[in-house]
Amino acid sequence: MKKVYNIAIVGLGQIGLYLYNEIRLKRRDIEIKTGKKIKIVAISAKNKNKKRKYKVNKKIFNKNPFDVLDKNPDILIECIGNSDGVSKKIVKKALNKKIHVITPNKALISKHGDKLAEIAEKNKVNLEFEASVGGGIPILRTIKEGLATNKLFKVYGILNGTCNYILSEMEKTKDSFKNVLKKAQNLGYAEPGNPKLDLNGYDALAKVKILSALSFNKKISNKVTLMEGIEYIEGKDFDIAEQLNLRIKLLGITELVNNRLFERVHPCLVKKNTYIANVSGVMNAVILNGLPVGESVLQGEGAGPGPTSSALMSDLLSILRGNIKFPFGVTSKKRKKIQVYDVNNYVNSLYLRFEVKDKPGVLSQITKQLARYRISVQRLIQIPDNTKKKASIIIITHNVKEQYSKKCIASFKSNKNIIKKPTVIRLF
Amino acid sequence: MKKVYNIAIVGLGQIGLYLYNEIRLKRRDIEIKTGKKIKIVAISAKNKNKKRKYKVNKKIFNKNPFDVLDKNPDILIECIGNSDGVSKKIVKKALNKKIHVITPNKALISKHGDKLAEIAEKNKVNLEFEASVGGGIPILRTIKEGLATNKLFKVYGILNGTCNYILSEMEKTKDSFKNVLKKAQNLGYAEPGNPKLDLNGYDALAKVKILSALSFNKKISNKVTLMEGIEYIEGKDFDIAEQLNLRIKLLGITELVNNRLFERVHPCLVKKNTYIANVSGVMNAVILNGLPVGESVLQGEGAGPGPTSSALMSDLLSILRGNIKFPFGVTSKKRKKIQVYDVNNYVNSLYLRFEVKDKPGVLSQITKQLARYRISVQRLIQIPDNTKKKASIIIITHNVKEQYSKKCIASFKSNKNIIKKPTVIRLF
Repeated sequence: MKKVYNIAIVGLGQIGLYLYNEIRLKRRDIEIKTGKKIKIVAISAKNKNKKRKYKVNKKIFNKNPFDVLDKNPDILIECIGNSDGVSKKIVKKALNKKIHVITPNKALISKHGDKLAEIAEKNKVNLEFEASVGGGIPILRTIKEGLATNKLFKVYGILNGTCNYILSEMEKTKDSFKNVLKKAQNLGYAEPGNPKLDLNGYDALAKVKILSALSFNKKISNKVTLMEGIEYIEGKDFDIAEQLNLRIKLLGITELVNNRLFERVHPCLVKKNTYIANVSGVMNAVILNGLPVGESVLQGEGAGPGPTSSALMSDLLSILRGNIKFPFGVTSKKRKKIQVYDVNNYVNSLYLRFEVKDKPGVLSQITKQLARYRISVQRLIQIPDNTKKKASIIIITHNVKEQYSKKCIASFKSNKNIIKKPTVIRLF
Repeated sequence: MKKVYNIAIVGLGQIGLYLYNEIRLKRRDIEIKTGKKIKIVAISAKNKNKKRKYKVNKKIFNKNPFDVLDKNPDILIECIGNSDGVSKKIVKKALNKKIHVITPNKALISKHGDKLAEIAEKNKVNLEFEASVGGGIPILRTIKEGLATNKLFKVYGILNGTCNYILSEMEKTKDSFKNVLKKAQNLGYAEPGNPKLDLNGYDALAKVKILSALSFNKKISNKVTLMEGIEYIEGKDFDIAEQLNLRIKLLGITELVNNRLFERVHPCLVKKNTYIANVSGVMNAVILNGLPVGESVLQGEGAGPGPTSSALMSDLLSILRGNIKFPFGVTSKKRKKIQVYDVNNYVNSLYLRFEVKDKPGVLSQITKQLARYRISVQRLIQIPDNTKKKASIIIITHNVKEQYSKKCIASFKSNKNIIKKPTVIRLF
């Protein structure tokens, strides 16, 4: 058996740098726990001389990331973080050179995971990506190992710490989306440049896709069934939710409906006394339903270098312990494509908020339109804004098929009395 | 590499039988996930012809459990469940014969785990016991693998489903301990014969000991620092808790205090709006605090054949995947003994309920005695029971050292006006 395992790290941003430091600090602990010695033999980042929080060994620094592959590494840790480009190329190259790969890169895995897993399997090396979902929560390992023979049928949770922080904070402080986003950015919870991929649900959906593939032993779906972000949630939505004893959460959900895959990310109104409603701030939580295990819940810090590094280290130990495994729990040959559920059949109760001109007849126009699409009203709240001659009309519908609600909502576009596109939040 | 793995199961009670059936049902799935074939080659139980829920293959039945070791098994699954006797003997024998062992037996592991781990390591086979703590929650695997390089400093939770069910049910139904216990027994949540080991905290403490050993990489402690059960909790305690917006939970807690091990199991008063207060019924939950991961929470069904079997199967897959590991995460040679915290130094706020004769001066006797031991009162509630000329006096103390509270409580013994030993519940 090999005596020393050589490690290369590409990308020394927040995550890569923290991990670099962790590995050096915990070398002795890792040796005790695995019986293997390790050595960081190469690192790479854009800027060699940038001032960093932890000092890096410049002797092993490479300007060109691909050069690290020539330094005889056994394990490559990819922390660049793009879905394509250098990230994809270097991971592919490494696997083909029989180098194990560890990455927290959900964009890469959710897009190219199937192909990369095949290459890893062919070359009998590991492709580990525990840190791509749920930060410090060992959720992927739990599905692949801890709950290995369970039949999972539904997995859902709070998968994006940025959105959860923003929603928790808006509810608590009554501050605007814009201000809270700025606060999140200042605290390092949201991307300073372009937080769009967090806010529009894309990040959570990438995680949902990885969870689906593992939970149901299927190929990763490349379809987007339903993805809605939190950009349109306003303070008044929190006020109404409060009145109804509900709370707003961005959930990622994947389930099998009649053997079809139904993946979705959207804001939900959840009852305040439920578990999921009480996961706040940057926490992540995943709830798994399966047989025979029943319901399992895992909660932990969803982001930040500490938790992410904890997950990356678990990948490293798994490799050092000689745990050569199929990246998605089963051989790629047995992972089939899965048909996707038709979202038009999705039946749900909806929260609709209309911003309207405060004129007689507007309410009747709305309710008439709803009736035309057979959407029946469970509850109606009208809040006037007299200073602006406007009003908010909030309607909680009974169960309605997505097919009808979509058409109905689109039909309001031509109504001049409705100031903007209605806000839709689904009840959970 | 071996093509077929032979499995033997001893003990066909609720757990053993369910598992036997699961393995047969999931054989194909296990093969896909591990690339290994399996075969149950021997089973053993007391009664061959007993009517069982699932049919067993009588051709492989052995009256004498030790006979299964002669049937060439690669893996022994011990489901007898005693801390000593046949359970211990057969596990030891198997390991010495280089047979992997899987067991849900917390009594065995918490008492003899260190010795058995040494034998397993010497013989390079696995000793797996995921099912011994937390039922279906893959908590041990999470500590050993998912959070492997974190520095854990506190692990606590609800570790006994029976007690949690009884406490939840007493709170909800206002029924007596005796009646709720009977109900729990009828539902199969509590041992029909002797539920004592669940109710007095012993079962939870065994789990705490296993958690400590794994979390802190130390030998299993054989000391009992603090163990209190739920037998003395009465309906009125729930009423008072309700008034104070608190809830009663039996918690198992292990932590390092100045590098000393502080293990304890006792009922706690927890704030209603906390996570742990809302884990109800037979659910189990474990909360881990560590660095750099932060706080992690795992929740799931804590008992019953389904969840237990899920955990046992994860052990089986771990072995089949060739995951030969130290049973406690690190080699036994590196696991040192740990000094135990002196419980007398434990400082906490207490809930004390006195049952007293309704006579003048009794309250003053109590408060005087408390003052003598420097226990200061934060809150006092007196509830008269006029029909019986009795009263309940409930005192919430400020922080007090265990050393003084213990002596103080003992000192009330000689007071004839105090009808029985005061009930103590610690605030969390």
